[in-house]
Amino acid sequence: MSDVSTHITLAHGNGGRFMRELIDEVFAAAIASPELDVHSDAAVLGALEGEPMLTTDGFTVQPLEFPGGNIGSLAIHGTVNDLAVAGAEPRYLTVNALIEEGLTLAQLQRLVGSMADAARASGVAIVAGDTKVVPRGQGSGLYLATTGLGVRGPGPRLGIDRVRVGDAILVSGPVGDHGTAVMLAREQFGLRGDLHSDSASVLPLSRALLDVPGLRFMRDPTRGGLATVAHEVARATRTRVLLREAAIPVHDPVRSVCEMLGYDPYYLACEGRVVAVVDAEQAEAALAAWHSLEQGRGAAIIGRVEEGPEQVVLETELGGERLLEELEDDPLPRIC
Amino acid sequence: MSDVSTHITLAHGNGGRFMRELIDEVFAAAIASPELDVHSDAAVLGALEGEPMLTTDGFTVQPLEFPGGNIGSLAIHGTVNDLAVAGAEPRYLTVNALIEEGLTLAQLQRLVGSMADAARASGVAIVAGDTKVVPRGQGSGLYLATTGLGVRGPGPRLGIDRVRVGDAILVSGPVGDHGTAVMLAREQFGLRGDLHSDSASVLPLSRALLDVPGLRFMRDPTRGGLATVAHEVARATRTRVLLREAAIPVHDPVRSVCEMLGYDPYYLACEGRVVAVVDAEQAEAALAAWHSLEQGRGAAIIGRVEEGPEQVVLETELGGERLLEELEDDPLPRIC
Repeated sequence: MSDVSTHITLAHGNGGRFMRELIDEVFAAAIASPELDVHSDAAVLGALEGEPMLTTDGFTVQPLEFPGGNIGSLAIHGTVNDLAVAGAEPRYLTVNALIEEGLTLAQLQRLVGSMADAARASGVAIVAGDTKVVPRGQGSGLYLATTGLGVRGPGPRLGIDRVRVGDAILVSGPVGDHGTAVMLAREQFGLRGDLHSDSASVLPLSRALLDVPGLRFMRDPTRGGLATVAHEVARATRTRVLLREAAIPVHDPVRSVCEMLGYDPYYLACEGRVVAVVDAEQAEAALAAWHSLEQGRGAAIIGRVEEGPEQVVLETELGGERLLEELEDDPLPRIC
Repeated sequence: MSDVSTHITLAHGNGGRFMRELIDEVFAAAIASPELDVHSDAAVLGALEGEPMLTTDGFTVQPLEFPGGNIGSLAIHGTVNDLAVAGAEPRYLTVNALIEEGLTLAQLQRLVGSMADAARASGVAIVAGDTKVVPRGQGSGLYLATTGLGVRGPGPRLGIDRVRVGDAILVSGPVGDHGTAVMLAREQFGLRGDLHSDSASVLPLSRALLDVPGLRFMRDPTRGGLATVAHEVARATRTRVLLREAAIPVHDPVRSVCEMLGYDPYYLACEGRVVAVVDAEQAEAALAAWHSLEQGRGAAIIGRVEEGPEQVVLETELGGERLLEELEDDPLPRIC
């Protein structure tokens, strides 16, 4: 029997005193946004100036804490980033926590603290939340689900359907860091070294491109990585997506670990990068906009959209071509 | 090894082909709302006319299906109801599904179908979603988290802080049905009989009261039941809440099961009822408004708000008084 003062118990989920104290002392104390009213069923928001946009995401990463982040900060960045790459400014977030009986209050407090810090740093208010406790052995410490409400200004709407043959493909920085860092944190290979997750808000990156004419589409390459975004583009527009291996930035330690373990970094999740498709004539302007940001120093033009057939091709460093197949088996489950 | 064509596997969660097919064929096919764009990171919404309100809720009920509902319909009703009792009209919903490896596709399809039906019946559009797959033994079939965005019209804001000494307390129908039905479905007592969950949208009930002057506050008595709502009122307003046992509607089979098993129906969850606090002079008008609805035929005036001390008291059928303590231990975990 766990002690209710140090560990989460089923009594923390029943609607009674322990749940109230958990919400007041762990969640509300850390979050402390003016719209959060734990006595109310729904939060009253300020007027939304612009076109409202809504997105949601679930988080089941294992381990809960890894070099460069944890499930709390990741859950904020993930949802902020989905709004950012859709061209919106995130305004409000809600958080659902499914807590496994037995999680220590100290760890929960740390994770909720990171969540609150990440939200503040991204300029969004957490305005509503819910907690449930699931029995030991029916969760894995903590699952989070976050929903984000943002607004989009006037101007052309971004979308994968706006991509045209001839467009250039850019990435804002090295790929595969998050997936590799989480894998190493989990598997205890003794290979940690310099590897840490790239988990971060991409708002500075997305804002920088919104001013570039000819911007068609942005996406954050999370589950399935860069290759999966390339497949989404190829499928939605019936084009051939060509990526140039020599141009795609990959950190050396990520490359080494992938070679050693037989992973392909193009399929590994990033949590702080943006893939953008831009009119080829504006590609250099877009690249310059990213290079001017600390977060975009590693940005590169990595490929282009060509006439079909619908496929994703990697032009190798030796000048050959290799098909990047759509992901089927899961190389690396639960990285977000 | 489960067959990917009949059961959920980890490959359904990796961002690749099986996940895409799952989202297209199970989720998008059932939901089919115009704003849902599975190729986009965020849904573009229509303009919101009125003050925006946001709420979120998680669902971990066991079993996943029970007499009168299932986790899919419950997840819609729960979030619709949180907006409804806050005086809002729900407009848009997002859904997060955390699916356990091994769940059958047939059951998932049934649950998602109920979710879609409940959303349509409540007049709300599911506009965004996310799915994650967790390994066998780290979930319990399906967890859902739903977030609702609604709008509130002009007029006085409802709130627990508006409750005054002398106000009347009403409930829209019998209490404890949902908690009892889920308990029996789980425990295999062989006592099912007529018991089924009251899971439903309370929108007709909340709308009917918004026209009654003197309405202070509404809440749906879910986790912790009627007694917990009464405690919230007493604590927030430093009053004594008196409930009259003879007036509180409880279905006979619920009463029998509770007596047999030693539960108190006032602490058991409802998922389709509303507790309202109303200026005493308007209590009969509020009651009449509810009685005019099919869903409110069992409504009753069940108590009043008195000068402190801060406590919840049950006036028994014999004329005595019994303290209803704040819930501590969990009599009945995972009913929502």
